[in-house]
Amino acid sequence: MTRSSAARASCAETIAIGSELLVGGRSDSNSLFITDALAAIGIEVRFKTIVGDDESDIADVLTTACRRAGIVIMTGGLGPTVDDRTREAVASVTGFRLARRKEAFDGMTARLAQWGRVPTRGQLRQALIPSRATIVHNPVGSAPGFALTWQNAQVIALPGVPSEMQAMMQQSVIPFLADYLERAKQGRSYPITRMIFHTWGLPESDVDAKLQGLIRKQTPVALGLLASPTGVLVSLTTKAHRMISEAVLQSLVDGVHTRLREWIYAEGHDSMEEIVGRLLLEQNRTIAVAESCTGGLIGHRLTLVPGSSAYVDRGAICYSNQAKIDMLGVPASLIAQYGAVSREVALAMATGMRERAGTSVALSVTGIAGPGGATDTKPVGLVYIGLDGGPGETQTKECRFHGDRSVIKQRAAQAALDLLRRWLIERGNG
Amino acid sequence: MTRSSAARASCAETIAIGSELLVGGRSDSNSLFITDALAAIGIEVRFKTIVGDDESDIADVLTTACRRAGIVIMTGGLGPTVDDRTREAVASVTGFRLARRKEAFDGMTARLAQWGRVPTRGQLRQALIPSRATIVHNPVGSAPGFALTWQNAQVIALPGVPSEMQAMMQQSVIPFLADYLERAKQGRSYPITRMIFHTWGLPESDVDAKLQGLIRKQTPVALGLLASPTGVLVSLTTKAHRMISEAVLQSLVDGVHTRLREWIYAEGHDSMEEIVGRLLLEQNRTIAVAESCTGGLIGHRLTLVPGSSAYVDRGAICYSNQAKIDMLGVPASLIAQYGAVSREVALAMATGMRERAGTSVALSVTGIAGPGGATDTKPVGLVYIGLDGGPGETQTKECRFHGDRSVIKQRAAQAALDLLRRWLIERGNG
Repeated sequence: MTRSSAARASCAETIAIGSELLVGGRSDSNSLFITDALAAIGIEVRFKTIVGDDESDIADVLTTACRRAGIVIMTGGLGPTVDDRTREAVASVTGFRLARRKEAFDGMTARLAQWGRVPTRGQLRQALIPSRATIVHNPVGSAPGFALTWQNAQVIALPGVPSEMQAMMQQSVIPFLADYLERAKQGRSYPITRMIFHTWGLPESDVDAKLQGLIRKQTPVALGLLASPTGVLVSLTTKAHRMISEAVLQSLVDGVHTRLREWIYAEGHDSMEEIVGRLLLEQNRTIAVAESCTGGLIGHRLTLVPGSSAYVDRGAICYSNQAKIDMLGVPASLIAQYGAVSREVALAMATGMRERAGTSVALSVTGIAGPGGATDTKPVGLVYIGLDGGPGETQTKECRFHGDRSVIKQRAAQAALDLLRRWLIERGNG
Repeated sequence: MTRSSAARASCAETIAIGSELLVGGRSDSNSLFITDALAAIGIEVRFKTIVGDDESDIADVLTTACRRAGIVIMTGGLGPTVDDRTREAVASVTGFRLARRKEAFDGMTARLAQWGRVPTRGQLRQALIPSRATIVHNPVGSAPGFALTWQNAQVIALPGVPSEMQAMMQQSVIPFLADYLERAKQGRSYPITRMIFHTWGLPESDVDAKLQGLIRKQTPVALGLLASPTGVLVSLTTKAHRMISEAVLQSLVDGVHTRLREWIYAEGHDSMEEIVGRLLLEQNRTIAVAESCTGGLIGHRLTLVPGSSAYVDRGAICYSNQAKIDMLGVPASLIAQYGAVSREVALAMATGMRERAGTSVALSVTGIAGPGGATDTKPVGLVYIGLDGGPGETQTKECRFHGDRSVIKQRAAQAALDLLRRWLIERGNG
């Protein structure tokens, strides 16, 4: 379990501190930001730990982290309350005693003065810094961070507030660590490249099967798969300690494209709604949506994109049958004949929406999100999607999804947006 | 850093295994499920670790966990691929050699046969179980889990697939651990109670200030605060090792209610949309929404609740000015005079929606979600909410939010639903 010193120097552990993190339902987004930022300078996060506000637990975790990682980034526990124990834990582990540092005190009082405040007694604790530590300036908030070397590990403590942590990482920590790696010269380290491909429409096991044999055993690239209600994310990640040529990397990217071309809808940080939005803008088209079971989710996603008011005109959330009749002109007889959840009604919704809105295209969804509402012939998860892009330009699609109500809504919205995306690409090429 | 054996026995660590978990953007929802399930039988999760697929890293993490926690729950790395290294890591740490276990093999082949499949070579690896380990039956998938005792720690390895892990926790692990705690008799342990209060409308620092002094130093209850775009969550959590009387606990709950009565909109696992839905059902009212800047988010949230078709009739996503005119009958002159983002237009949207839908009440939102669209007098984050509950029953509210586009949409939707909630409560009492 020993690691070579070269490998350890560029191996990192994140420690998130706070009892709420142990029990709360949020993702630890701080550690993801840190992972990305470190990867860019060739540092791999290999361990992530979450611990509560207990001082001895924090000390235990810090001791372990310094043993196995050369770089340890702690977030949280630097605030003004008695629950904030990171300073004390670091002091107890390292033996570097806490003392009020003038530089930290002056910075904090200056910051608070800008807001018309004086430091509270708790905030004075924020100026306590372990001896031998360097202060990490906080350009956003009042709590300074600090950095120190202990047992040959670089230990950096930052506040848990995302905006403060991010600013301090970018302004101070990343330049410092890049310089440290340079000075350490413990073996060459390369930026970690991570390429992401978002797929929709293929189960994870099929994605896995299609990618079998893509990466040769000797190639220092890791393949990752992550399934969610909106599809399977595929990633290629290079290693910090192995050089990989652009040509080899490009051949892997080409391989993913070839094997999954049909199902990749976006790459990198792009989302389905951004891709669709870009296509609409490029083609100078406008859109309206008509949503039954998705209840507004498609409209919400389309309008998450900044500037979407350039192409999103309107939407109808037509939950009741009467709403489908009133808002979209769906004939009552059509609903009576085929049922509200049918290919026919989906198409009539799209056509009614497009004609009323006067947009280039309209997208519709009707389905059974469950848990109630199923019949003998129409199970929970049955969804119809309609698209009307003008005369002779209509499409419908039947889908059968599994999962709870929320998952079915998410899958239905994703399937509808993907149908629109494919239609736009075809029209763009035509 | 030693812990008494009594405390260690009921102290747990979760280990999530998988390289995707280190770099992916998802929350580790498995660990939250495990935390809740263990809390109910008096076991406190004090450490959470995430580690990649590297066998020696997993072994390192497991060794550390067994030193500091009496109960270690590992998830992931039990699948059929060569990247699944949990079995090997456990064997290397404990010295319990892996061997194919007939019980595991038979269970797996029977499961696969149900699906009309035979085990692949990789799946055969899933029947490898460390000697001295007990098999944990998987009622949902093909990979069995296992439990063993090492260095006086209970080590349990489960698949990372949430549905499989959850079923195995409920059917096998929780009964086993409850029995183990009983047998261990290492000091009394009490179920951990966690009470949650959801607040909206008060900044975190004000919530904190209002709760100052609520919990006396000697009372074994932890107070937690967690801020998000939809408000501040307040929690009271009891300790496994300290008995607390019902009366004391109730007095704390009463204290939270008294101090935050104005701002608590839900408790426990309830959401804003569930509370609003329940009020609408109780009062036999129906609702329609008219959304501009929220783009469908309010409709999506209302329709996330099972059975919401009983009270949600429809919604209009009226993004363009023309849509506000067409769909809701907002006078063009009103938009020209006051602007689309104004108190007057918000009210006209709500009234137009209610009259067209024929619902008991309609809720509307118009605002500037940013980053574009601001003017000298109307900044990003300015939002107007309208409510029309019939003649003489109209309300409007002006809000100014900070944050990015997504945060402003979330806050605007939450504020609108909270206005509706308050109105319904007033009407229900009237």
